[in-house]
Amino acid sequence: MTDFFKGISPIKFEGADSTNPLAYRHYNKDELVAGKRMEDHIRPAIAYWHTFAWEGGDPFGGRTFDRPWYDKGMEGARIKADVAFEMFDLLDAPFFCFHDADIAPEGATLAESNRNVREIGEIFARKMQSGRTRLLWGTANLFSNRRYMSGAATNPDPDVFAYAAGQVKNVLELTHELGGDNYVLWGGREGYETLLNTKIGQEQDQMARFIHLVIEHAEKIGFKGQVLIEPKPQEPSKHQYDYDVATVYGFLKRYDLDTKVKCNIEVGHAFLAGHSFEHELAVAASLGMLGSVDANRNDLQSGWDTDQFPNSVPETTLAFYQILKNGGLGKGGFNFDAKVRRQSIDPADLLYGHIGGLDVLARSLKAAAALIADGTYDKAVDARYAGWQGADAKAILGGKVSLADLAARVEKDNINPQPRSGQQEYLENLINRFV
Amino acid sequence: MTDFFKGISPIKFEGADSTNPLAYRHYNKDELVAGKRMEDHIRPAIAYWHTFAWEGGDPFGGRTFDRPWYDKGMEGARIKADVAFEMFDLLDAPFFCFHDADIAPEGATLAESNRNVREIGEIFARKMQSGRTRLLWGTANLFSNRRYMSGAATNPDPDVFAYAAGQVKNVLELTHELGGDNYVLWGGREGYETLLNTKIGQEQDQMARFIHLVIEHAEKIGFKGQVLIEPKPQEPSKHQYDYDVATVYGFLKRYDLDTKVKCNIEVGHAFLAGHSFEHELAVAASLGMLGSVDANRNDLQSGWDTDQFPNSVPETTLAFYQILKNGGLGKGGFNFDAKVRRQSIDPADLLYGHIGGLDVLARSLKAAAALIADGTYDKAVDARYAGWQGADAKAILGGKVSLADLAARVEKDNINPQPRSGQQEYLENLINRFV
Amino acid sequence: MTDFFKGISPIKFEGADSTNPLAYRHYNKDELVAGKRMEDHIRPAIAYWHTFAWEGGDPFGGRTFDRPWYDKGMEGARIKADVAFEMFDLLDAPFFCFHDADIAPEGATLAESNRNVREIGEIFARKMQSGRTRLLWGTANLFSNRRYMSGAATNPDPDVFAYAAGQVKNVLELTHELGGDNYVLWGGREGYETLLNTKIGQEQDQMARFIHLVIEHAEKIGFKGQVLIEPKPQEPSKHQYDYDVATVYGFLKRYDLDTKVKCNIEVGHAFLAGHSFEHELAVAASLGMLGSVDANRNDLQSGWDTDQFPNSVPETTLAFYQILKNGGLGKGGFNFDAKVRRQSIDPADLLYGHIGGLDVLARSLKAAAALIADGTYDKAVDARYAGWQGADAKAILGGKVSLADLAARVEKDNINPQPRSGQQEYLENLINRFV
Amino acid sequence: MTDFFKGISPIKFEGADSTNPLAYRHYNKDELVAGKRMEDHIRPAIAYWHTFAWEGGDPFGGRTFDRPWYDKGMEGARIKADVAFEMFDLLDAPFFCFHDADIAPEGATLAESNRNVREIGEIFARKMQSGRTRLLWGTANLFSNRRYMSGAATNPDPDVFAYAAGQVKNVLELTHELGGDNYVLWGGREGYETLLNTKIGQEQDQMARFIHLVIEHAEKIGFKGQVLIEPKPQEPSKHQYDYDVATVYGFLKRYDLDTKVKCNIEVGHAFLAGHSFEHELAVAASLGMLGSVDANRNDLQSGWDTDQFPNSVPETTLAFYQILKNGGLGKGGFNFDAKVRRQSIDPADLLYGHIGGLDVLARSLKAAAALIADGTYDKAVDARYAGWQGADAKAILGGKVSLADLAARVEKDNINPQPRSGQQEYLENLINRFV
Ligand SMILES: [Co+2]
Ligand SMILES: [Co+2]
Ligand SMILES: [Co+2]
Ligand SMILES: [Co+2]
Ligand SMILES: [Co+2]
Ligand SMILES: [Co+2]
Ligand SMILES: [Co+2]
Ligand SMILES: [Co+2]
Repeated sequence: MTDFFKGISPIKFEGADSTNPLAYRHYNKDELVAGKRMEDHIRPAIAYWHTFAWEGGDPFGGRTFDRPWYDKGMEGARIKADVAFEMFDLLDAPFFCFHDADIAPEGATLAESNRNVREIGEIFARKMQSGRTRLLWGTANLFSNRRYMSGAATNPDPDVFAYAAGQVKNVLELTHELGGDNYVLWGGREGYETLLNTKIGQEQDQMARFIHLVIEHAEKIGFKGQVLIEPKPQEPSKHQYDYDVATVYGFLKRYDLDTKVKCNIEVGHAFLAGHSFEHELAVAASLGMLGSVDANRNDLQSGWDTDQFPNSVPETTLAFYQILKNGGLGKGGFNFDAKVRRQSIDPADLLYGHIGGLDVLARSLKAAAALIADGTYDKAVDARYAGWQGADAKAILGGKVSLADLAARVEKDNINPQPRSGQQEYLENLINRFV
Repeated sequence: MTDFFKGISPIKFEGADSTNPLAYRHYNKDELVAGKRMEDHIRPAIAYWHTFAWEGGDPFGGRTFDRPWYDKGMEGARIKADVAFEMFDLLDAPFFCFHDADIAPEGATLAESNRNVREIGEIFARKMQSGRTRLLWGTANLFSNRRYMSGAATNPDPDVFAYAAGQVKNVLELTHELGGDNYVLWGGREGYETLLNTKIGQEQDQMARFIHLVIEHAEKIGFKGQVLIEPKPQEPSKHQYDYDVATVYGFLKRYDLDTKVKCNIEVGHAFLAGHSFEHELAVAASLGMLGSVDANRNDLQSGWDTDQFPNSVPETTLAFYQILKNGGLGKGGFNFDAKVRRQSIDPADLLYGHIGGLDVLARSLKAAAALIADGTYDKAVDARYAGWQGADAKAILGGKVSLADLAARVEKDNINPQPRSGQQEYLENLINRFV
Repeated sequence: MTDFFKGISPIKFEGADSTNPLAYRHYNKDELVAGKRMEDHIRPAIAYWHTFAWEGGDPFGGRTFDRPWYDKGMEGARIKADVAFEMFDLLDAPFFCFHDADIAPEGATLAESNRNVREIGEIFARKMQSGRTRLLWGTANLFSNRRYMSGAATNPDPDVFAYAAGQVKNVLELTHELGGDNYVLWGGREGYETLLNTKIGQEQDQMARFIHLVIEHAEKIGFKGQVLIEPKPQEPSKHQYDYDVATVYGFLKRYDLDTKVKCNIEVGHAFLAGHSFEHELAVAASLGMLGSVDANRNDLQSGWDTDQFPNSVPETTLAFYQILKNGGLGKGGFNFDAKVRRQSIDPADLLYGHIGGLDVLARSLKAAAALIADGTYDKAVDARYAGWQGADAKAILGGKVSLADLAARVEKDNINPQPRSGQQEYLENLINRFV
Repeated sequence: MTDFFKGISPIKFEGADSTNPLAYRHYNKDELVAGKRMEDHIRPAIAYWHTFAWEGGDPFGGRTFDRPWYDKGMEGARIKADVAFEMFDLLDAPFFCFHDADIAPEGATLAESNRNVREIGEIFARKMQSGRTRLLWGTANLFSNRRYMSGAATNPDPDVFAYAAGQVKNVLELTHELGGDNYVLWGGREGYETLLNTKIGQEQDQMARFIHLVIEHAEKIGFKGQVLIEPKPQEPSKHQYDYDVATVYGFLKRYDLDTKVKCNIEVGHAFLAGHSFEHELAVAASLGMLGSVDANRNDLQSGWDTDQFPNSVPETTLAFYQILKNGGLGKGGFNFDAKVRRQSIDPADLLYGHIGGLDVLARSLKAAAALIADGTYDKAVDARYAGWQGADAKAILGGKVSLADLAARVEKDNINPQPRSGQQEYLENLINRFV
């Protein structure tokens, strides 16, 4: 037991009237919502990187945090693991997520790096046996080391492709051994800094091949989890190939990967791509691609990925509506890909971030479930499209009618369609009854 | 002969030293560039809508132009056609483009509207016989009339779908009869104003069906032109389904349309989608989807589609590089989807816009051709990817090597890839030698 | 009595549990919040332009609404006035706002236009005597007519300056006669479309002179209301001189106008300028420039002014916090500078928009008041700055210490300041307890 | 002599036809442009930070460069200084700029840090005696160390204010001793991360006091250089108080600092604030606030400060036009606040960046000078405003005419102003003749 969170007791649900900042006011894991435990809906996960590996730096300043595991190599990695699981317990977190580079320092060779990762992986395994926190997903960091500065799978140097393969193999296997529910690919350097030195077609072929290799290896080792791509339009690269859900879908479809891979959708990445979060969820749901969620928010005035904790119940309710209509997230969950601000330097700040985020998710889940249970909203939307339930309309969609048939029908029946109100304000007010 | 351009003589090429604002300084149609006439590279087209139909309005003010064809119904449409072809002659334009609604006023019924369009179409046919201007593409306006306020193909009302079909059939046939090289679909209202009242999956199914109908009808009537979708991310809708090239590709692939349809890529739409123009061209080229171009530019500080004439040679050179490497635009061309500013109210302003635009295209074409002829640039990029030409690397891409093989190789050979300079500044300077 | 809102009864407060979409659920005008009637806090106003003059057009399509007053000249203006005041009554609105061009059609001359405006003004006066709705502010439309295409006060043509003066004089006097509490200047065309044809210094001198003329005339006629400038960064112009509150402040200060004029701050304009709404309020408050508010919201993904009704309680609560700390809005109020979407074509949609907006304002006001009453939040912020209450710190701000003194003190006392947590997440959670 | 640039000879002007990537093609320092040496127009400076202190990191990855001075404390600082001056000589650079933290490592106390800075400063002094490179400006880094995480002058802790004062005193004096022409203040952390914990009024008072202290100290030590504020809207902070030129002007005016301080305007910061670079220059010129320039460019698709080397002649020509019309930059210059991309890891890349940037500045300077010499453009703009040269118009601006006078005149003379073309396309084409 470290003394990192000294004096802080486990976070409990105390109800909406509690003024205790170290208590849940809405997140009550066993409360049933639409017939399912709240925890089973949300499946919240703590991200190792932002919580334990990020040091508070930004492009204009260095480390602001001061943690007992800094600058201590493998010994630090062990302290970090201890604190991490203490925090999982404090928050009663059912899941966590990690990159290989978050949990152990790089060695002089890939082999040594991988050994370091596995050594900490064994510590995780032991802690997971005695605790309740499970692994939502693992992933490999293929972007921080300078060898990846020009991409990993899409690097102009095939040796880098090979190196990345060696790294992914290790984390994928560890993820499997730890019982992870998913494996995530985020291609922060799979893109370009300038189109001037880039062959897009070549790089996309490389990327597709890499993902096929991962899928094949996952099958070979018997990994039953879901492989996920996390779209992001840019940053660190000027342009990333996994721009948004629609782009990822086209890529997967082109390379026969669309039945093997789903999306891990991050709120802030949706915003940076010019979309709302609920848009990306709706698109993914319509394509059968909704896998998991990186819960956070982006500052509305900042042009980069701010990875803040979610704090708007109205916005998150719209997201939960999409998820509930999709039948939930399956093996996915809500990973808090969120970091406390670099000025939030106290250990307690790490807890405030997660507590606030979970309370927002809990309120939003309940609001979305109530909206659906009420039914008025869904009925209004169904009514708008009722015309397409008619036989003639179905024949159109069924491919039984030609352009000429339709043209003739309009002329014969003198069809002159009259617009009907889209009722946006009515629907917005209706939603606002539930948030 | 109208007196709209009274006193203005045909625009001639006078060379770079000319100070005559009503002369071409760089656009010299018969000049050979990389073995092809400049005109045959560029295939420039004048857009009927911005040039003759737009009245200078914006969201905060109405008509600023004062044209002899305003408010005169079919008589005005005939005057407009006369002026249009006079302008085509003045500019020596090889192509033009139009929407049905640009050329003739709506009637009381679809039948009457279509008759109006065909009547002006016959005037076009006569003028085209005696002149040299041909039709680059036709299209149907499925967004201005209030009946389309909630979409055309994606409207919740199937009658609107049918009405749109009747309209497209008419323009597609007219395009065919006028010898048009392409038919364009731009879905300005195929999207949503609010996700709250929208079923994305349903609407996408409708849109796909509609395009299939168009393709089938084109084949039925023997239209040999290319069908094109013009991507745009938003405006007028909050979100448009044809967001960008990658999104359109995924959509077409999903609905088995990817071999039938290509993209008409607009500079300003690329910008609004968060991309550079050359990016969209490169993506389209890599997917075999590069069909045609809407030449314009977007104001860099405005968040809406400003449709200004292109005026940056460095930027357009990068675009032409992509096009030349693609082997040109085939049946496509450069349609000036550009309007003079609403304060540019004089007839001569219409000419200044097109002259300046053409000169920029001509300079850019020559610069890109010289860059390619020089060869230094292409060699530098090829050298960057040379590693993938090795046998081992080809085996990776060829699917002959597994993740485990690669991991083993890295460990065995102790592969430790060293980064190599991306040379962005060197390449930028190199390009700047040609612009 | 027109039949525009036929069958709709006056909107009443029915409480949070009401499911009646034509009832207030939170806006309860006489309810006391922090010792003041809710209505007296909010002072809500209905905007004539969006509600009665806008026809549903956008840059890609025309009128979608169908109102009995369209295309009927002065008779239409009278019908419009009847419907307007019927709506004010239905909503129990204490205030409205208008431009001259909203209420009456332009005539052939300025004199005739002004007479038309005054004729409707007399109708307003009569209706205001028998009703309870008062005038929050009047303003002149100096941007829609083509004569203003290059600006009003900043036009290169001094005749346009004079014409604008004639128009403002008329509306200012009408505003005074109708007992308006404010007069607003919004300079939508006071800026430029291209810097290439613009003399910024010259235009700013013109603008300053114009505002001085307005102030002098207001004093001359005894107008006791507040003159307000409404900042907006762009649209319709590429750049508008009244970019944001800080810019307006600098302009006013430069031309000795800062004690005469305050700001009317619009939510959506703040967003377009790269700010949050609460930022603009806080800046204005710190400068003594907070005059009034244009309540709306901007779509987060659209780059133009969407003027939607406010619907986020968390966001609006932060705004109300700033306003309450400022001691309220004084003569100002919350003008709904918001329009129903162009697909919201039913008369009831106009009511839904305003009802939803008012309910959001009411909830937000109560939340902000509760936050302040609780006190925890203010105490936390005060504690952060407590160091500046010390005598030494006050001496610094008081100008009693030099740079060298401070440097010497740091060295002598070996001052090594340690960072303290900024507590952002803690504060966000705290705020979320109240919304 | 280090071997960092081994094998690279001094960069010479070789003319436009040179294909040597390590030669100037346009920058010819002694060439006269508009009667002044090119070098005296441009006064180019090399930025110590990006060139020698930045290590290639970004938010998702660490150091990519590999320099002989890394991780070597004061010895490294001396190697760095050697390489810096070797590069100044290679490029024949007349100026450089630095922050204290760029040139020497922090010590355990402020005193030690300042001593380190002065020790390197003495090395600079010796090198400057034997070389030709002078100091354009110095500045203090008040944002990288964690003590400044919540601001320097605007920190809630007055000890941080004092510490910053001690640091600025040291660099200001060193700048003075090295004969620097300017002293710059950039307030990257003078702003807020969240408005929730921020008192804007309090912080602005602190900032104003700090600047007064700096001005007073500069006067006391006899520094004749210009003090400059560098505006930036955000990053690293969510909001920075020095948002743009107009905001800085208002701030300076408010606190009686407007005659003491000018602006150092950065291209990329203008873009992030929603402006074009030439806009910021024009605004500054109109306010007498144009001090110096940070030459770079921002990637058009990235929402953060990319600090790339300028490479667009058309854009930079518009900037030079503003500067030449302003009578030049006086004591200011063009500081390359630009960094090679993190993939540009070779020493030669540092040279390519600066060579390309200088060539772009040289071409742009010549183009702008030719545009002015030609005179057509200036005449066109003057003609647009000619109406304001009339006696009646001057009387308006001179305050001799009231609102009522103007209104009466419009009515009496039946003034009905007709719009005149703004000629944007004509002017754009005209400019394009020179670039
Ligand atoms: Co993420
Ligand atoms: Co993120
Ligand atoms: Co277009
Ligand atoms: Co466009
Ligand atoms: Co407004
Ligand atoms: Co607005
Ligand atoms: Co700078
Ligand atoms: Co910068």
